[in-house]
Amino acid sequence: MIVADMTRKSFMKSFAQHHILSTNSFTLDDLNILFTLTQKMEQRVKKHRSLSLLNGYILATLFFEPSTRTRLSFETAMLRLGGQVITVEHGESSSLKKGETLEDMGYVVGQYADCVVMRHPDPYSVDRLASTCQVPVINAGDGANQHPTQALLDLYTIYSEKKRVNGLHIGIMGDLKYGRTVHSLVDLLQEYSVQLTFISHPSLKLPEKSIASLRNKGLIVKESESLESVIPNLDVLYVTRVQEERFQNRIDYEKVKNLYQITPSLLRLSKDALSILHPLPRTAEIHPEVDTDPKARYFKQVQNGIYLRMALLSLLLGGARDLADA
Amino acid sequence: MIVADMTRKSFMKSFAQHHILSTNSFTLDDLNILFTLTQKMEQRVKKHRSLSLLNGYILATLFFEPSTRTRLSFETAMLRLGGQVITVEHGESSSLKKGETLEDMGYVVGQYADCVVMRHPDPYSVDRLASTCQVPVINAGDGANQHPTQALLDLYTIYSEKKRVNGLHIGIMGDLKYGRTVHSLVDLLQEYSVQLTFISHPSLKLPEKSIASLRNKGLIVKESESLESVIPNLDVLYVTRVQEERFQNRIDYEKVKNLYQITPSLLRLSKDALSILHPLPRTAEIHPEVDTDPKARYFKQVQNGIYLRMALLSLLLGGARDLADA
Amino acid sequence: MIVADMTRKSFMKSFAQHHILSTNSFTLDDLNILFTLTQKMEQRVKKHRSLSLLNGYILATLFFEPSTRTRLSFETAMLRLGGQVITVEHGESSSLKKGETLEDMGYVVGQYADCVVMRHPDPYSVDRLASTCQVPVINAGDGANQHPTQALLDLYTIYSEKKRVNGLHIGIMGDLKYGRTVHSLVDLLQEYSVQLTFISHPSLKLPEKSIASLRNKGLIVKESESLESVIPNLDVLYVTRVQEERFQNRIDYEKVKNLYQITPSLLRLSKDALSILHPLPRTAEIHPEVDTDPKARYFKQVQNGIYLRMALLSLLLGGARDLADA
Repeated sequence: MIVADMTRKSFMKSFAQHHILSTNSFTLDDLNILFTLTQKMEQRVKKHRSLSLLNGYILATLFFEPSTRTRLSFETAMLRLGGQVITVEHGESSSLKKGETLEDMGYVVGQYADCVVMRHPDPYSVDRLASTCQVPVINAGDGANQHPTQALLDLYTIYSEKKRVNGLHIGIMGDLKYGRTVHSLVDLLQEYSVQLTFISHPSLKLPEKSIASLRNKGLIVKESESLESVIPNLDVLYVTRVQEERFQNRIDYEKVKNLYQITPSLLRLSKDALSILHPLPRTAEIHPEVDTDPKARYFKQVQNGIYLRMALLSLLLGGARDLADA
Repeated sequence: MIVADMTRKSFMKSFAQHHILSTNSFTLDDLNILFTLTQKMEQRVKKHRSLSLLNGYILATLFFEPSTRTRLSFETAMLRLGGQVITVEHGESSSLKKGETLEDMGYVVGQYADCVVMRHPDPYSVDRLASTCQVPVINAGDGANQHPTQALLDLYTIYSEKKRVNGLHIGIMGDLKYGRTVHSLVDLLQEYSVQLTFISHPSLKLPEKSIASLRNKGLIVKESESLESVIPNLDVLYVTRVQEERFQNRIDYEKVKNLYQITPSLLRLSKDALSILHPLPRTAEIHPEVDTDPKARYFKQVQNGIYLRMALLSLLLGGARDLADA
Repeated sequence: MIVADMTRKSFMKSFAQHHILSTNSFTLDDLNILFTLTQKMEQRVKKHRSLSLLNGYILATLFFEPSTRTRLSFETAMLRLGGQVITVEHGESSSLKKGETLEDMGYVVGQYADCVVMRHPDPYSVDRLASTCQVPVINAGDGANQHPTQALLDLYTIYSEKKRVNGLHIGIMGDLKYGRTVHSLVDLLQEYSVQLTFISHPSLKLPEKSIASLRNKGLIVKESESLESVIPNLDVLYVTRVQEERFQNRIDYEKVKNLYQITPSLLRLSKDALSILHPLPRTAEIHPEVDTDPKARYFKQVQNGIYLRMALLSLLLGGARDLADA
């Protein structure tokens, strides 16, 4: 994860005025640039609380599906950069009801804001808005499809915790079949040389083709139904929520819930340096007593989300020029 | 449309600390002042992105009926002026439910903000709030009654496109019977010497008394059921949405929809310099293929809305003093 | 109400980085500090409109129950201090639905904002959020439990109107049985030497134990069912709303409504210097004709709410250091 020797010109070219619709568009160089700037953002915020890199810029956050955490994280990032925010908190009752297309909304909102963040329940809806929008659009979740900044902050947290990604043994646990964040993180991890162990109930396993794709890329991949047996070897454990709705009956759900719960006693089996991550919200899969354990890094992960979004916004809008040189 | 030789004193007198409740209160001189400042706002924003004319001022946007476009346009205008915004995005569940009157809300919100923008489904509701509010109130739509800033930005776009209003031949098409924006624009156009052609299905014609009133004022007014036959003569074509609900059955609606749709082939019949406007949202009445035609000015119209609202806000709050002299 | 001779050190110790969950935590010294600063805020805002004491700070307002007035008052206060705001206007559809606990939300929102204001229908819900939140949390109403800043601004308005609290004869009228604001104000008044007269329909009397507690503290307490007979002696009359739902039938409600309504003719019986307060929203209990009477101070009370919240926010966040010395 050493930043390549990039001139400011190429640096700007990678990001400025681009849409961020999926994790697919990120090269290793892009990730290096982004993560290096994210670290700088953390230092600057801890020193100055807020910066003035995006003074005079306006971010529009359009949420056609509620997501308090994601929306407030983007808005905090913009405000800490010195920018301003206009927001649609509950988009369901908007002019889309009067028959307006997402394409028209893209034309319109591009007249208001300098950057747009959008969440929508329909896959590829954000692509449609972006197709007509003349300012950068960031996908903040489009149904089962993508939520790229979540995957980026997950990966950044691994990097930030361990100061590297290559060579790590990463466990990924929970709903591996349907979990959007798992799929996006796995996509990004394909770029690295890591060992992955997937831990889940048999009914929630990672799809076969994903496993095959990872192995084709040369990654060491294992699957396990027992958290207890694999936890001693892990450097990072990425946990996700298992939704009760996925199970036929409550008894099945309760069994899974108990088998795959991180507890203080279970943590005694793990390495001292284990980092536990979770995209949140968490339910039963991590016991609250774990929260104060130094291995619990999921709230630090929330904080990282702000720094990463600050870095991304300033790259997209050209506000990082000075920091990039610094 | 030449700005009269006004001193700063009279300039301030016209607008400062006034409520903007309808289009009726605007004289030709007012419009000249407003439009000249709107042009300056466009130049300044294109150069500086955001200004600092209203630093320290707060705008309250109170929406008791959703209107994403109008709300975000006002908020963008305020932020680009250097001001701040407090907002009620979904006013239906507010303290009005506890029996608070609009008059009491006027007293209260006048203690918070330096200016109030309000939309409400009931005609004259904004007048009630304004009656007790000690800061300027702008009507952003009160049911079937008024939406003055929409009419002003429509008129401004005509002026801005053609550098004049007098002498133009303007076509107005769509739902002329119920359309609030049509009625307000027609009210404003009475102040000018223009030729108007109203194009609609017989069931959606402009009310007879409006036609009579225009003719009394000396305007040349025609009515037509055929867009195709009149489009060659128009300088401006203002299109509005026809709502399916206005028709007895779907078959009638589909017929009208097709007869009054702007298409690339239809545009070949028009003058090169035709400007097509639409208050948005648009549905079938303008084909998306028209969007990239230079004659399509409805997204530029959206942009003009921000500059016009910037001009209006700064006039109401006295923040335009410096620009007015410049 | 003379400010004790406090050094800046003790001043900061009292408030900085504390949660404000109830009125119980306020000593007389705290109130003196807060009210003195509130007066300074009023002077500064009237002179400068907005200050820059909290430049770079972010306030999160989380409303899991709508309260336009309270939310906009806090947001106005923060913006007038130079800070910024992120907001959840309608919290009901947030991630709490996905099973997130208030404790987790406390961890998370503490990563975003520098201070949190929260309203929630469940008693002690704000305490739960505060228990994990590493930035100051202000309770903006938790069901039937507490709404401390309302009580503080009520008390401040009494102090500000009369330049003292001790020695006053204060009438409190309306729904004394269920009214949260009445109970909180009465709690704060226990710290002073005042005469209290409670005026209500027998079915809405202040609970016996509250009366007993006040008498134990040495306050002179009277109860009355007749507003007319007690109004001549009052310095302050604090009126609250009586909700129709409290009564078995509409006839009973109408009777009470008429007996306990402030009218211009009733006011002729009162002292010239009477101050009428009301936490708002008001319904029938104060006739609108009273609004323009100099005795009506309930809209000034709204204004005071902003200055008080400015003072509180700046104390909690350390932004009042300079003003405290001034």
